[in-house]
Amino acid sequence: MRAIILSVGDELVLGQTVDTNSAWLSQQLAAVGCAVAGHLTVGDDQRAIEQAIEESVGRCDVLLVSGGIGPTDDDLTRQALAAVLREPLELNEKWLHRLEAFFRKVGRPTMSPLNRVQAMIPRGAAMIENTAGTAAGIDASYRSGDQKTVCRIYVMPGVPKEMKLMFQRDALPHVQHAGGGAVILSRILHTFGLGESLVAEKLGDLMDRRRNPIVGTTVSGGIVSVRINAKFQTMEEARRQLADAELMCRSVLGDLVFGQDDDTLPLVVAQQIDASGDQPLITTAESCTGGLLAKMLTDVPGSSAYFDRGFVTYSNEAKTGMLGVPAELIRQHGAVSEPVALAMAEGARAGGDNMIGIAISGIAGPGGGTPSKPVGTVCIALSSRDGTIGRTFIFPGDREMIRDRSAKMALTMLRFHLLGKEMSF
Amino acid sequence: MRAIILSVGDELVLGQTVDTNSAWLSQQLAAVGCAVAGHLTVGDDQRAIEQAIEESVGRCDVLLVSGGIGPTDDDLTRQALAAVLREPLELNEKWLHRLEAFFRKVGRPTMSPLNRVQAMIPRGAAMIENTAGTAAGIDASYRSGDQKTVCRIYVMPGVPKEMKLMFQRDALPHVQHAGGGAVILSRILHTFGLGESLVAEKLGDLMDRRRNPIVGTTVSGGIVSVRINAKFQTMEEARRQLADAELMCRSVLGDLVFGQDDDTLPLVVAQQIDASGDQPLITTAESCTGGLLAKMLTDVPGSSAYFDRGFVTYSNEAKTGMLGVPAELIRQHGAVSEPVALAMAEGARAGGDNMIGIAISGIAGPGGGTPSKPVGTVCIALSSRDGTIGRTFIFPGDREMIRDRSAKMALTMLRFHLLGKEMSF
Repeated sequence: MRAIILSVGDELVLGQTVDTNSAWLSQQLAAVGCAVAGHLTVGDDQRAIEQAIEESVGRCDVLLVSGGIGPTDDDLTRQALAAVLREPLELNEKWLHRLEAFFRKVGRPTMSPLNRVQAMIPRGAAMIENTAGTAAGIDASYRSGDQKTVCRIYVMPGVPKEMKLMFQRDALPHVQHAGGGAVILSRILHTFGLGESLVAEKLGDLMDRRRNPIVGTTVSGGIVSVRINAKFQTMEEARRQLADAELMCRSVLGDLVFGQDDDTLPLVVAQQIDASGDQPLITTAESCTGGLLAKMLTDVPGSSAYFDRGFVTYSNEAKTGMLGVPAELIRQHGAVSEPVALAMAEGARAGGDNMIGIAISGIAGPGGGTPSKPVGTVCIALSSRDGTIGRTFIFPGDREMIRDRSAKMALTMLRFHLLGKEMSF
Repeated sequence: MRAIILSVGDELVLGQTVDTNSAWLSQQLAAVGCAVAGHLTVGDDQRAIEQAIEESVGRCDVLLVSGGIGPTDDDLTRQALAAVLREPLELNEKWLHRLEAFFRKVGRPTMSPLNRVQAMIPRGAAMIENTAGTAAGIDASYRSGDQKTVCRIYVMPGVPKEMKLMFQRDALPHVQHAGGGAVILSRILHTFGLGESLVAEKLGDLMDRRRNPIVGTTVSGGIVSVRINAKFQTMEEARRQLADAELMCRSVLGDLVFGQDDDTLPLVVAQQIDASGDQPLITTAESCTGGLLAKMLTDVPGSSAYFDRGFVTYSNEAKTGMLGVPAELIRQHGAVSEPVALAMAEGARAGGDNMIGIAISGIAGPGGGTPSKPVGTVCIALSSRDGTIGRTFIFPGDREMIRDRSAKMALTMLRFHLLGKEMSF
């Protein structure tokens, strides 16, 4: 069972609207074991829509089309579909009555003649009810002359809400039924700290493209994510195989994995604190990240349970005045140095027994780099009742990337501290 | 001049990632008068990528491919391109050296052998430099046997930031040059504070779709942007018409416009301070935004000239201990109240003559709302030698939106203070 998703609309090819329908439909299809061969997008051009439908019907079992069935002159999907099917458009009386009733209800007793076209569908096709709008959907079947090619075509509105309702009620049951079973289950494991190629090296053969479950990596914002997709005939088999593959991935990646699926670093840290017996209080002291670490920690609702204050000490005077970092220490080592980061973390913690201070001092650039401390040099320190540790990193990228990676690395150091383990990289 | 945009990645056809690259590229192409014939998306499957490239090259003058050039086994775009071009992949020594230097710089003297493939490009193609990552792009030309079909192909990373840099520096100038003909010039004016429909109301007839220059609005992150596109036969005419239309838009929007094109709120505030004679020092005191305002202020390189410290006072104790807000005041009015926000701003300013303190206290949710102070209630105060002012806002949306709008509104209050004007909305 293979599907193609076709989106129609000038607003899409002009880039004025990001196509979220295709991703949503893909997720729905994957969940019932229907492979998506591809997405296609064309503008409001009848010939382009015809060509896209024509080429797709030979390559998939189900074609999901959204957009281009509104009431105006630039809505041309139904005309294109009729041309491909070589059938005339016919008025569907039932939907016409529904449309007229709809307009009476919203206080427009005379319907615009433009809306009449919304009740037209190719001969031989069936109308799909739209419970949320005026554009009826179309359920059609394409058959090649020799009957060898058969493709079911669903035409739905481009408005996400209307499309989703229609898909779930009408197209999805057909896909599930015709698909005869295969189920795709997915799991995503998130890591932070190593580059994509090193994560892939650790995974080794697990990433062989011929395997099922199949394992792949993607990277976003420095987070390297490992995707595991299991496609099997039964839900039970898919579940078992996915669990096995996940276990193998986790065993080679170890503590590098900080979470799965919708987990984020701040959320995982919050869960760790929540699960720990002694509920430490986190305090931040930031120089180059300028508040970003505190912002990330407080992204999590309820973070007031473990975060009560943060210091943004951008200048040397602020480091001395707010955190008690000796001016002499800064003079001696420079503000971007492990000794200063250690003193910042200790100053933020201020001796509180159950407190953890985290400090970041670095050169986010673009200026300020030197040969011995290039742009991207960042010192991060963590102080707790167990002592204070510091590490120096060199992050690649621009100011925004360096600041982002610094805050994420600080959260990672906190995560390892809460695990009671040394950071393994 | 026609383009097709091809996106490659299992995460796209599985619906795990929404494809934002295609919309962004389409916008860029539209702005220089290049029509986009369509978008295509396929998974990490070499045969599917080959087929997509093969079919596209006959239908467009430029094919923009993103994704599938990472270092791992599921990155197959370069192999597919080489197959379509019928050329072998060759090692590009220059990029190999760059890769090795990159890994040395970040402290990994031995590069993973997996990364070596990232320096491979089809024979006859040119490498495109990647200033933000390890995947070099590929600039190739497809020619059919009879030389009738010629299509320029640019392969770029799927990571939006790397793709955008590469497109703007390498592909866009080619498209602009090859496109010839009409000139499209654009200006974008950014506003913050009023909703899109109110901005559109102010613009009135200027937004008539039959006009040239054409004026439209878009909204992103609460910033309502007014886009003016002038399409004329000569650069001179386009420039003159654009300037006239911009003047008309600015005259109806007034101080609501904070900047244009690449301007951001923090950047504009930085420029205002830089242009002012007396170089005030900004200090922040944040509760619900948890450091986001300080983070935004320090997004700007060189912000240390006017920002030296910030206080994240998430708990009541922090407000009292770090800013000297009387505990009694908090008890009396609640932490989210104008009196407390005023006291926070004054505490942050700490009487410094040329200092400005900005404070934010609000309910970001999802919990914590009451009938009289619902989620989204945010008090913002600004203290300077001219006195202290406060305002209460109710922002819509979720936790992330409320925090973002709060910080942007604080920057907007600062912008109006630096203008020496009352906020007009």
